[in-house]
Amino acid sequence: MNRKQLFDLIRAKKSFLCVGLDSDIEKLPPHLLEFSDPVFEFNKAIIDATIDLTIAYKPNLAFYESRGIAGWHTLEKTIRYLKQFGDNVFTIADAKRGDIGNTSLLYAKAFLAGGNDGLDFDAVTVAPYMGSDSVTPFLSYENKWAIILGLTSNKGAQDFQFLESEQKKLYESVLKKSSSWGTVDNIMYVIGATQAHTLKEIRQIIPDHFLLIPGIGAQGGSLDEVVANGMNQQCGLIVNASRSIIFASKDKDFDKNARSEALTVQTQMAQHLANYNII
Amino acid sequence: MNRKQLFDLIRAKKSFLCVGLDSDIEKLPPHLLEFSDPVFEFNKAIIDATIDLTIAYKPNLAFYESRGIAGWHTLEKTIRYLKQFGDNVFTIADAKRGDIGNTSLLYAKAFLAGGNDGLDFDAVTVAPYMGSDSVTPFLSYENKWAIILGLTSNKGAQDFQFLESEQKKLYESVLKKSSSWGTVDNIMYVIGATQAHTLKEIRQIIPDHFLLIPGIGAQGGSLDEVVANGMNQQCGLIVNASRSIIFASKDKDFDKNARSEALTVQTQMAQHLANYNII
Repeated sequence: MNRKQLFDLIRAKKSFLCVGLDSDIEKLPPHLLEFSDPVFEFNKAIIDATIDLTIAYKPNLAFYESRGIAGWHTLEKTIRYLKQFGDNVFTIADAKRGDIGNTSLLYAKAFLAGGNDGLDFDAVTVAPYMGSDSVTPFLSYENKWAIILGLTSNKGAQDFQFLESEQKKLYESVLKKSSSWGTVDNIMYVIGATQAHTLKEIRQIIPDHFLLIPGIGAQGGSLDEVVANGMNQQCGLIVNASRSIIFASKDKDFDKNARSEALTVQTQMAQHLANYNII
Repeated sequence: MNRKQLFDLIRAKKSFLCVGLDSDIEKLPPHLLEFSDPVFEFNKAIIDATIDLTIAYKPNLAFYESRGIAGWHTLEKTIRYLKQFGDNVFTIADAKRGDIGNTSLLYAKAFLAGGNDGLDFDAVTVAPYMGSDSVTPFLSYENKWAIILGLTSNKGAQDFQFLESEQKKLYESVLKKSSSWGTVDNIMYVIGATQAHTLKEIRQIIPDHFLLIPGIGAQGGSLDEVVANGMNQQCGLIVNASRSIIFASKDKDFDKNARSEALTVQTQMAQHLANYNII
């Protein structure tokens, strides 16, 4: 999906919500455990209940990889199910991969290539520590995206990301340097909602890039603050919530509860988009 | 495997060689393509031909993940095959994972847990960018190891790893800070052989940690320089070669050629270990 299609999707759904399919099998509603693939049944129900409110879905690979082959089957079924919605949904493999060039090439293929070659996600998250050749292989697929870790939402972000060199914090150096490896049409950045106070300065470095913002919901980030400091004229934000939506309840009607949580967020988002004259 | 067992292994085999199972299906000897799982047949032949010369094997996950479920099957078969050798081999999942705490927990389980829970590797490579909570979950498995990216062997290492803050380069800050999260008994570091000139200074920060050194062979690093600057009294080095050994030839007797390459390296290693009075 290209940038224009993504923006159209945001306007059509009046939403910039991404639902994180962090579908931990240990936390599923118990009645789903009767199915042969409980996690896929869960994902399908969550997708069906939220697709009109949600522009993107983001399976975090750890929740699938930790189940080995069974998990990989679930992931394949989930992305195939999502692809049926065509340009009505943006798909993100939250994999945080990164390796030397010839190896990153294979990760890029695994997540971004279509047909029999790969999973055909629209985007994949990428770690920046190993530098340019670890990232650029993800930029060679047309209308696909690398989403580079900039400033993350977790406590450990304090350990290295704020180290200052030549008047720039490490995450600022990452944003500045890595943005030259591609364009606003194939790079996005992960900026944690828990770091929303820094978004104003981040927007001075990368005014036009889309930002994937995790940390709303269970991690405690504020949507209002994210919007106030990070929204641009093309929205420029994809805000993710995972646990607060998908595990809103463990009852038989968990999907209705997930929808209700997603609707609350989407309603706020529609208001923000209207305030910015985007819709 | 614990530190003492690893050191015993190094002395017994007179080797600190790790063979990287970067088993790209496109580069296999053509006759193997007749098998139902050519990559596993290849891995098995390489392991059988080199096990007495090699202390560790390191499948890079990208080469498996890029083949989806089939690749994951191959990976499972390969680690099961390796585990049959018990304490006669150290196994490394070169995955370069790292995510927020609750997610890293699942990656740790996927690669380090035994039984039906995970793949039971001895060690997994981990990216440091997201800080402490992204790494510490890998430290909670007894006699297992997190191998943190310090200074990598690729060109992109220049982009961020040398940024200087408070008189320390980023990779030095990573070594210094992350070494406090665990001990010399559960943390190792990746230091590229192509950066061997820095090993002397690195040894001042982390004199006792084992280092996993990729970059010998196809990437051009020098074993002599690595040893001169990085070896300690317990060897402290696991030196990896991948392509130069496993793809030494594409002929029917590719395994003999791989053995011959491995033997050349192991012979040099035995001499180095003797020079340091380790054997």
